[in-house]
Amino acid sequence: MNAVEDCVASESDTASPGRSTPASPLGTAARPAEGRTGRSFEGGLLSRLITYLGDPALEFVLWTGESVRPARATEPVARICIGDRGAFYGLLIDPQVSFGESYSTGRIKVEGDLVSVLEAVYEAHPNSKRGFSVIRRGVEVIRRSRRRVNTLNGSQDNIHHHYDIGNKFYSLWLGKTMAYTCAYYPTPTALLDEAQVAKMDHVCRKMRLKPGESVVEAGCGWGSLAIHMAQHYGVKVRAFNISKEQVAFARERAQREGLGSSVEFVLDDYRNITGKYDAFVSVGMLEHVGVDNYPALGRVISQCLGNVGRGLIHSIGRNFPAHMHPWIEKRIFPGACPPALSEFAQIFEPWNLSVLDVENIRLHYARTLHHWMDLYEGASDKVAEMFDEKFVRMWRLYLAGSIAAFTTGTLQLFQVLFAPGQSNDVPWTRDYMYAH
Amino acid sequence: MNAVEDCVASESDTASPGRSTPASPLGTAARPAEGRTGRSFEGGLLSRLITYLGDPALEFVLWTGESVRPARATEPVARICIGDRGAFYGLLIDPQVSFGESYSTGRIKVEGDLVSVLEAVYEAHPNSKRGFSVIRRGVEVIRRSRRRVNTLNGSQDNIHHHYDIGNKFYSLWLGKTMAYTCAYYPTPTALLDEAQVAKMDHVCRKMRLKPGESVVEAGCGWGSLAIHMAQHYGVKVRAFNISKEQVAFARERAQREGLGSSVEFVLDDYRNITGKYDAFVSVGMLEHVGVDNYPALGRVISQCLGNVGRGLIHSIGRNFPAHMHPWIEKRIFPGACPPALSEFAQIFEPWNLSVLDVENIRLHYARTLHHWMDLYEGASDKVAEMFDEKFVRMWRLYLAGSIAAFTTGTLQLFQVLFAPGQSNDVPWTRDYMYAH
Repeated sequence: MNAVEDCVASESDTASPGRSTPASPLGTAARPAEGRTGRSFEGGLLSRLITYLGDPALEFVLWTGESVRPARATEPVARICIGDRGAFYGLLIDPQVSFGESYSTGRIKVEGDLVSVLEAVYEAHPNSKRGFSVIRRGVEVIRRSRRRVNTLNGSQDNIHHHYDIGNKFYSLWLGKTMAYTCAYYPTPTALLDEAQVAKMDHVCRKMRLKPGESVVEAGCGWGSLAIHMAQHYGVKVRAFNISKEQVAFARERAQREGLGSSVEFVLDDYRNITGKYDAFVSVGMLEHVGVDNYPALGRVISQCLGNVGRGLIHSIGRNFPAHMHPWIEKRIFPGACPPALSEFAQIFEPWNLSVLDVENIRLHYARTLHHWMDLYEGASDKVAEMFDEKFVRMWRLYLAGSIAAFTTGTLQLFQVLFAPGQSNDVPWTRDYMYAH
Repeated sequence: MNAVEDCVASESDTASPGRSTPASPLGTAARPAEGRTGRSFEGGLLSRLITYLGDPALEFVLWTGESVRPARATEPVARICIGDRGAFYGLLIDPQVSFGESYSTGRIKVEGDLVSVLEAVYEAHPNSKRGFSVIRRGVEVIRRSRRRVNTLNGSQDNIHHHYDIGNKFYSLWLGKTMAYTCAYYPTPTALLDEAQVAKMDHVCRKMRLKPGESVVEAGCGWGSLAIHMAQHYGVKVRAFNISKEQVAFARERAQREGLGSSVEFVLDDYRNITGKYDAFVSVGMLEHVGVDNYPALGRVISQCLGNVGRGLIHSIGRNFPAHMHPWIEKRIFPGACPPALSEFAQIFEPWNLSVLDVENIRLHYARTLHHWMDLYEGASDKVAEMFDEKFVRMWRLYLAGSIAAFTTGTLQLFQVLFAPGQSNDVPWTRDYMYAH
């Protein structure tokens, strides 16, 4: 996307890059003292904030026109224009949440490519040893006390918040499949819909589905995978989801495709799944489960499969355990938590489920999100009509931030294939996934 | 192998299966009381032991001729003949270690296939709630206090114990490559040497080695992979190992192949690796590292790779954390500990190393071990000449037990491919592994 905006500051002639004062973050003793010459009180605070953020390759411009460029000898990739004193002090107290809030309302603007801005922020890493630590800790304590938990009712609220805002809205930018998870691009030039179908086939092939088998799906979105499995692999599917809007859409879709007898959509929580199945699959639900519930999910899987069968979980993940981005958690995905592999293991290890295969396709999610974002930007007028400008900017930030998280390795995308530990019905090599 | 032996008991006509008394393990109230009729005091204890062991599909025969068959309606797959009272009480106190010790000295014999016996034991699982718990806990406390640790010196002793017992011995049964790790069988009918070469190619392809690149190898065995990489992929290799015998063998081999300038074998611990490399590889060393040292190993890897490159660790693993089999730990692999994936993660997560791919090929290790065992049995006279009959039986038990551990899913074989979290030089799909 080309989210180039007019900065408040860039409109003023005092803020042109040529006149900006070179930044001198506090704490880097080697920097010459004259770097801070002429810095206002708020300019000094901004400089400290930038140091705290790890000195991203960005130029920051205050509402007064005063600007601070990267301390490193790096050209800034974009300009962040802070429109007023309130937005600025918000950033000082809680930069992650306040940036999201002020960007959404237009009090902070971005001159340049939004994805590049967020990549620069992710690449810089906050430097928690440099200033603001007391404020930061206080904010973290408050945040933790407000975190939304995934009890049966909590999950329902959390899922309703994101997925029940309107099927029509999602259909503007998810493509024909309405698959709202990472696609699999056989080649980098594949189109979105092709790649979503390829993802479904990749998942089905990994599970070695055979006609007549039964599959249970936990968290089925708008039903694309359930319908694809029934239609192309001849399996019987029971698919669970707690989003009313999604289940209604999926049921109608299955009826339309004449698959009413082979796909059943159940409006219920994964924790209430019962019965025995040949395969368990979950694509893009684990992010909403919460690590505390992983042993419970593992028990459900173990009961579904017994001593045979196989399963696949496709989920956003991380290289190490960390909290969700607090603005995303607040505005977009309450209760969400992408796990590290050590956390994934808590699903499998208590139940002697054997991990057969893990594939990390994080760059495919960046590509998928780029495709979604192109469609989203193309439909932004319609989104503004459905909601408002603030919503448009909020979701733009979420999509751009997600791209940046995948391109910088802040987020991963793991497909984990597993089977009960007792089962020797495991593939000999992975040729079966690729011989087609 | 066909390790059918004459049981002490089977020589006596009192022990034929027809005359055996049906077992009635204590604690299973549903079993008829008459099942224990005529059981001697030691027969009663044996019956309790069998219950504790989870009622494996085995017949146990005491030196008196008294026998106990499985309580379940299962035909025993083999007979275990306990030759004397001392061996029997040893089993009661510490069944895992005592079975190994008494099997090695011939005080316990097996009538039937040894691998099937050990599979039956692994499939049964000990029932810790049924008897002997006080004894068992005491044994575990003593065992833990004696466990060998992997400090720099400890590792040297542990590795010396296993790998320095003679290159000539290993060359009797490892095949031409002298690769002492799981092979990769492109088809189940491949031969051992073919499969070892295929494993090396599989590893090299996963790492996408290019001519002129540098590779550091941690734990290089007799040098087969280091030499293969230099010879077939044109890379420069530095390979570390603390086994003197192996390093001497590997150096001579590299000289013979004219690779003296492209492969350097270093007699040193992985913790002392320095320098920057394009790739890090370790095949079959992690089992000896010990989980406590995983963050240290991760630091070494991270320093070797910086922000680019990639690495691969190939190791025996488990579906959940557990201690090594105590007899194997005592007699075969002191200090060894195959990790679960949650433990593997402790190498990667502290250093933002990103797991790209995990493949579990445990059944390939069962096949590899079968091939080794066939060669080992064919050379058992020579082994007896080099050492003695006790050694022959000890290593037979180790090989058979390892097969059983892989076929029953007690052990796994993970190949984990990873890259620094910051690097976007990660493959787009896995086609590169298979397009050849």
